[in-house]
Amino acid sequence: MKNINADIGLIGLGVMGSSLALNMESNGYTVAVHNRTAPQIDNIVNNRSKHKKIFGFENLEKFVNSIKTPRKIMLMVVAGTVVDDYIQKLIPLLDQGDIIIDGGNSHFPDTSRRTEELESKGFQFIGAGVSGGEEGALKGPSIMPGGSVSAWPEVKEIFQNISAKVGDNEPCCDWIGEGGSGHFVKMVHNGIEYGDMQLICEAYQIMKDVLEMSNEEMHEVFKEWNKGELNSYLIEITADILKFKEKDGSYLIDNILDTAGEKGTGKWTAAVALELGAPLTLIGEAVFARYLSSRKDERVEASTMFDGPSIKFDGDKEQILNDIHDALYASKMVSYAQGYTLLSRAAKEFDWNLNYGAIALMWRGGCIIRSVFLSKIKDAYNRNSDIKNLLLDPFFKDKINKSQDGWRRVVSIAISNGVAIPAMTSSLSYFDGYRNARLPANLLQAQRDYFGAHTFERVDGKRGEFFHNDWIQDKD
Amino acid sequence: MKNINADIGLIGLGVMGSSLALNMESNGYTVAVHNRTAPQIDNIVNNRSKHKKIFGFENLEKFVNSIKTPRKIMLMVVAGTVVDDYIQKLIPLLDQGDIIIDGGNSHFPDTSRRTEELESKGFQFIGAGVSGGEEGALKGPSIMPGGSVSAWPEVKEIFQNISAKVGDNEPCCDWIGEGGSGHFVKMVHNGIEYGDMQLICEAYQIMKDVLEMSNEEMHEVFKEWNKGELNSYLIEITADILKFKEKDGSYLIDNILDTAGEKGTGKWTAAVALELGAPLTLIGEAVFARYLSSRKDERVEASTMFDGPSIKFDGDKEQILNDIHDALYASKMVSYAQGYTLLSRAAKEFDWNLNYGAIALMWRGGCIIRSVFLSKIKDAYNRNSDIKNLLLDPFFKDKINKSQDGWRRVVSIAISNGVAIPAMTSSLSYFDGYRNARLPANLLQAQRDYFGAHTFERVDGKRGEFFHNDWIQDKD
Repeated sequence: MKNINADIGLIGLGVMGSSLALNMESNGYTVAVHNRTAPQIDNIVNNRSKHKKIFGFENLEKFVNSIKTPRKIMLMVVAGTVVDDYIQKLIPLLDQGDIIIDGGNSHFPDTSRRTEELESKGFQFIGAGVSGGEEGALKGPSIMPGGSVSAWPEVKEIFQNISAKVGDNEPCCDWIGEGGSGHFVKMVHNGIEYGDMQLICEAYQIMKDVLEMSNEEMHEVFKEWNKGELNSYLIEITADILKFKEKDGSYLIDNILDTAGEKGTGKWTAAVALELGAPLTLIGEAVFARYLSSRKDERVEASTMFDGPSIKFDGDKEQILNDIHDALYASKMVSYAQGYTLLSRAAKEFDWNLNYGAIALMWRGGCIIRSVFLSKIKDAYNRNSDIKNLLLDPFFKDKINKSQDGWRRVVSIAISNGVAIPAMTSSLSYFDGYRNARLPANLLQAQRDYFGAHTFERVDGKRGEFFHNDWIQDKD
Repeated sequence: MKNINADIGLIGLGVMGSSLALNMESNGYTVAVHNRTAPQIDNIVNNRSKHKKIFGFENLEKFVNSIKTPRKIMLMVVAGTVVDDYIQKLIPLLDQGDIIIDGGNSHFPDTSRRTEELESKGFQFIGAGVSGGEEGALKGPSIMPGGSVSAWPEVKEIFQNISAKVGDNEPCCDWIGEGGSGHFVKMVHNGIEYGDMQLICEAYQIMKDVLEMSNEEMHEVFKEWNKGELNSYLIEITADILKFKEKDGSYLIDNILDTAGEKGTGKWTAAVALELGAPLTLIGEAVFARYLSSRKDERVEASTMFDGPSIKFDGDKEQILNDIHDALYASKMVSYAQGYTLLSRAAKEFDWNLNYGAIALMWRGGCIIRSVFLSKIKDAYNRNSDIKNLLLDPFFKDKINKSQDGWRRVVSIAISNGVAIPAMTSSLSYFDGYRNARLPANLLQAQRDYFGAHTFERVDGKRGEFFHNDWIQDKD
């Protein structure tokens, strides 16, 4: 067992860890594996005929010694103290230059801290976001690595080989940047996933409640949309979901309770945006919409107390379906533009060099938000890597200009019919604010100066020159 | 100087601290004051004929010894380490049972920590939110104290005497609750202030851009509104602001740059709501709207690239003004309902006993969000102190039912005219979500189960019973 010279070591044989180990082996790598408890190790290595190149070690020191140097040791364990505990256990066993990789869902400030700590001790650290669930991990996930820049050439080949591929065999894995940037980008991915899901839910609700469409009809619409520019994993599974029947012939979708759960990464994304001063309205609304949905009993009570609007839709159904399509596409553009704005704010704040086009390519396949749409973002950054906002790219600009009439119509119809569409309205307000050279914040600044002497800038003054006015004297 | 037996000591003679000391003295209290630097002390005590009962001490020990026990020492210093530093300096000089009061803008977790630490050492601690700016501090602020419950009877008389009064001489100060609850309530107050200001800005923008009203006309509308149910400090100063002319005859409002600043408490409020799972959409949008406004150069660039809608308003102006009034009122109801939901989530999370009606009364006068409207909230909690959501109170229910047609009309008009109204739409979507027994979160749960086996509850199952479906088998 001593001289297996493993290409990589992997600790933590849960669903994701085991799948990644199998993925690595099937790509020709020799993998040493370790787990806190033994049965998981036996489980993966027992079938020796199938997994000849996976070697299990109950003893951590023997595990470390089985890996060729500079060692690459990937942690696939629960985020939090478990990661820190393993790092502390590994440090005495490692040689200078060895690389620890955290492939779990760690929060990015932890990853920044760990990178700094391990680099100061002569080791290297990578925090890698891994997306795609069990199937992705096994067959090709999206991998977003960041941390010690010098470690990237060491892991690049393995990571790109095991990752998902799109287009002309392009890997959905590239170097993100310094410190916690890999986990930051994974977090933003998850936030965008919240937004995409909320938008699809709003489209579904309008079709169901305003157009009174059946599950079968909606299935057909999503299936059709999946053939065009909305082609994406989430649209695809929505079409699947809508036609799934239970044994008694009823549609499963109608039997599922409408209370959304969450695992925390969506709220991290919105909270970081608040902290960094980036307007991330759509994802914020998507997180809050989940919270509202979970107050089911209160909603049921409220539903008996309020009158909805009495308006009944009697327009052109095909037209409105096209409008919903456009509203979804336009809102999605805003959501990704907001997500990328957050990325660039973070890059500035934390001094990361982010490759925005590569990030779009990494999200293009393997992960939950994978879509044809992401290739348009890649193209935009190819055209101009310094673009201030995705909406300013010619493709997006043209698209949003063409979509906005339908977007406005569908929002008006939903509002007059009493359907809640927080994400579609939030993104439209962002668009109307963004394209407006003159927002009402002049009044807001006047108010702040009136009650708190917070001062204001003038349109005819220099930027950074602040004035205070004595407002009271003119009071009538 | 030794035997002045001061009723209270105050440290920190900035604008707020000095004003509070003068307020205390004018209410008959003997006040010992201390400041890090001497000139501020001289400044306040020099005019002995005017301030006979304010005594200044450069020496902290002499300052402490001049106060009668149990001592009440109020810190009016910059939030953060300065507060901790003073606490550490005071501890060796205090007697058991003495009370330190932090009247600054501390973040509530710091206040919880300090309360615990000082109580464990035999002292008492109060974190008190103080709102109203310089004028309020001098003539009667809103004071929101929380922390060591046993300390309240000791400070109650002074605090209530110096606070603003409303109605039948009711003080805008009452006990909030344990730990950091006083500063938490002050933080939510500030968040609500962000929301109120954003709503007024949106009303202004619709009047200006859709109805093409002059500043003078808008001044008249806000002045008129201030006589009715929207009567509030912020509406009042908006009317003042709109008619303020510069020397050259131009309106100052038109010369103020539309880039909003902020001091952080709004984003704290939204971030805490994300953390605690409370849907606080309107304040979240208000914070993000400030961020968007500050991207002025980008907006100016974008304004040249996008077509707005070509629709021109040609409806009944008086009708729309009424609708804007109703939209503002209805959105405001939602914002306060969301704020109170956050308060009750925090009370549950941190085990605070909050007196919700008293909080409304504290905000009723003295502070920036003071309004007639807050008496309606007080009434609602008088009717039912356990009400789940303010919107369920008969007054609010009736009001929102009556307002919603105008609210929907004005939102539709703004959207079709391309005016950004994130707060008005966000609150409307919240209302439509809240009153809907069946949201589309069933689809969201199906998606989560499809890609991540996150499971779902069933409408025909027990709450807390989770199911997983093997979605793939039925794929076509």
